Amino acid sequence: MIPKDHPRYRSLVARERLARCAREGIVALEGLAAHGRGEAFDYLIGERTTRSAEIAIQTAAAMLLSARHPVISVNGNTAALAAGEIAALQQVSGADVEVNLFHRTDERIRLITRHLEGHGVRVLSGTPERLVPLAHDRGLCLREGIGDADAVLVPLEDGDRCEALRAMGKAVITIDLNPLSRTARTATLTIVDELTRALPAITAACTTLKPGEGDRLITLLDNAYLLRAAIDEMRERLTHALE
Amino acid sequence: MIPKDHPRYRSLVARERLARCAREGIVALEGLAAHGRGEAFDYLIGERTTRSAEIAIQTAAAMLLSARHPVISVNGNTAALAAGEIAALQQVSGADVEVNLFHRTDERIRLITRHLEGHGVRVLSGTPERLVPLAHDRGLCLREGIGDADAVLVPLEDGDRCEALRAMGKAVITIDLNPLSRTARTATLTIVDELTRALPAITAACTTLKPGEGDRLITLLDNAYLLRAAIDEMRERLTHALE
Repeated sequence: MIPKDHPRYRSLVARERLARCAREGIVALEGLAAHGRGEAFDYLIGERTTRSAEIAIQTAAAMLLSARHPVISVNGNTAALAAGEIAALQQVSGADVEVNLFHRTDERIRLITRHLEGHGVRVLSGTPERLVPLAHDRGLCLREGIGDADAVLVPLEDGDRCEALRAMGKAVITIDLNPLSRTARTATLTIVDELTRALPAITAACTTLKPGEGDRLITLLDNAYLLRAAIDEMRERLTHALE
Repeated sequence: MIPKDHPRYRSLVARERLARCAREGIVALEGLAAHGRGEAFDYLIGERTTRSAEIAIQTAAAMLLSARHPVISVNGNTAALAAGEIAALQQVSGADVEVNLFHRTDERIRLITRHLEGHGVRVLSGTPERLVPLAHDRGLCLREGIGDADAVLVPLEDGDRCEALRAMGKAVITIDLNPLSRTARTATLTIVDELTRALPAITAACTTLKPGEGDRLITLLDNAYLLRAAIDEMRERLTHALE
């Protein structure tokens, strides 16, 4: 039991939820360490949505709304932390949701699908095919899902797969707290923000973007600028950290 | 099997060892996330012992050697990653070792004690009492161990407990990769370094410090300076990250 007055209550609760989902088989043990790495970078942006992340969030909404076939690719950590937030975003964006795992087993796919459905997400099902140019299970996806998508939102993605999706000509939107990661640097658009802050903000933006605003945001998109801005935030926070 | 010449061999081996110990119940699942968090900060100091960390390490050795009753407080992650290193440090410093857990259960205490003993650590046993001013199990420690100690080395400690130990008038030495953490800022001395690099370096310093050197290091101790130096290393690395 984490005391409610603990200064890092939110972060510790997220960690506990992941641990519980790891016991249930939804989250891979490797996913717990990956989450911790994200926490460190979140600490460095002050555990809040920065101004540059807010621009990225608005742009993500614009891209999802203007896509022919947007798909949200969900892994174990995303399902554990933000199943309800995924349902809400699916609702307003009309995106398909496909479960796609780095540590893929049929059992985990089944568990995560059930977990998402329990939170109101409609999850694509079907027979996965090796459509992504990666070895073994990591290249698997659904032909009618990620295979057909022109825009894929992949929170917490692996660098290899992000590169492979880009090579297939898809627009890749990622949510990644580490602006130095290969995923962050390879994606079309990187939201350097924590998942449970970013997803509801994308959902909100989907409902508030005015006609024309979206197109302008997409035209202005400069991911290298967004990453530099995130890094500058981190440097700034480090500079004033001990004051 | 991770190839020995992999550039991140040490880091990957540590991660595998922790995952194995999590399956055995030694490491709390929350501990895996905490480890990931450390990895991110280690990346930012270049995965090496910095010059300021080296000064902190020498000072830690001096403090342990000059203490009336030094105690090393060991948690699940520390036991999993560095049981042999703890045995060696106990040997040269004469410190007592007490198992003290954030996620405390009798079963984990027992497992960790056995694991440490299997690596040659002499572990204090007894009936824990609530001597640390914290709620519930988190205030538990041994009267003849941490309760009596004037200097406590607590690698990977929680901020609350670090503060509580300081409030009891104890000198607290911590090993924490996050120079911004409450633990890092509350401790008497913070070694911003990775555990399995720092512990053998403290052990080595215990055997090489010359008479008088230790006292001088303790007199010169300025933890705020050491933290600023670690932060400067991280800023420097972020500055050049996208080049």
